[in-house]
Amino acid sequence: MESDIGFTAALEEAKQGSQEGGVPIGAALVSADGKILGRGHNQRIQKGSATLHAEISALENAGRLPAATYRGATMYTTLSPCDMCTGACVMYQVKRVVIGENKTFVGGEDYLKQKGVEVVILKSDECQELMKKFIKEKPDDWNEDIGEEL
Amino acid sequence: MESDIGFTAALEEAKQGSQEGGVPIGAALVSADGKILGRGHNQRIQKGSATLHAEISALENAGRLPAATYRGATMYTTLSPCDMCTGACVMYQVKRVVIGENKTFVGGEDYLKQKGVEVVILKSDECQELMKKFIKEKPDDWNEDIGEEL
Repeated sequence: MESDIGFTAALEEAKQGSQEGGVPIGAALVSADGKILGRGHNQRIQKGSATLHAEISALENAGRLPAATYRGATMYTTLSPCDMCTGACVMYQVKRVVIGENKTFVGGEDYLKQKGVEVVILKSDECQELMKKFIKEKPDDWNEDIGEEL
Repeated sequence: MESDIGFTAALEEAKQGSQEGGVPIGAALVSADGKILGRGHNQRIQKGSATLHAEISALENAGRLPAATYRGATMYTTLSPCDMCTGACVMYQVKRVVIGENKTFVGGEDYLKQKGVEVVILKSDECQELMKKFIKEKPDDWNEDIGEEL
């Protein structure tokens, strides 16, 4: 699974976010036939954005798509998705969400499953290290990104 | 309630969206002390956006805010929020969501309540008429906006 085109793209996005000094989370939306429909990374710090989490960025960069396209698609994300990104996947009824790691943050995995979305956890050390480093270096930015008070 | 600054702003945004030929849904995020933090309307048609629903637009236009600001805030929206927008409100733990109408679409109201968010339904005929007209005129765009297949 870790060699999957979608996870590779999501991890590249996360690393790019890290290099930019941003929240190091990346995502990629992949079609049923294995093509990347959109990819992106968290833009809180880079664009001062409160909504461009990685998954939202990937959906936004994918542009307008028919409902049927989402329903066969997989959302790859380097970190367990927050409630907003979970809700986006539920709204568009993506088939599957593949998550790099859920050790540094656990989002809406149960809700995804409850809504019939397949959830896969890759337990990627690389994803986890990116987040651990970021949370240690910029705890305020991280808490802001997930709406948590210190 | 209908004279509330937040609802007035959300309705103005919905009307602006309608005038632009877009999905006529507006939203406004209002602080605990009654100031508009951000407002916006659905941008699917105008910007080819798959994520800029009204509530996401309002949050995006509000910019980066401390977690505490969201927790005292109210999200006004002219239509019952979809799963994505519901999730955004849950993630930022807004205090209250005030909904113009929920006759043409019912989103995540139960989930909001389950997560401790106060939900108020205004039963606004004006909001409902905007949506009824839009759904009749552009059913494909509406279904795409909520990830529904025809």
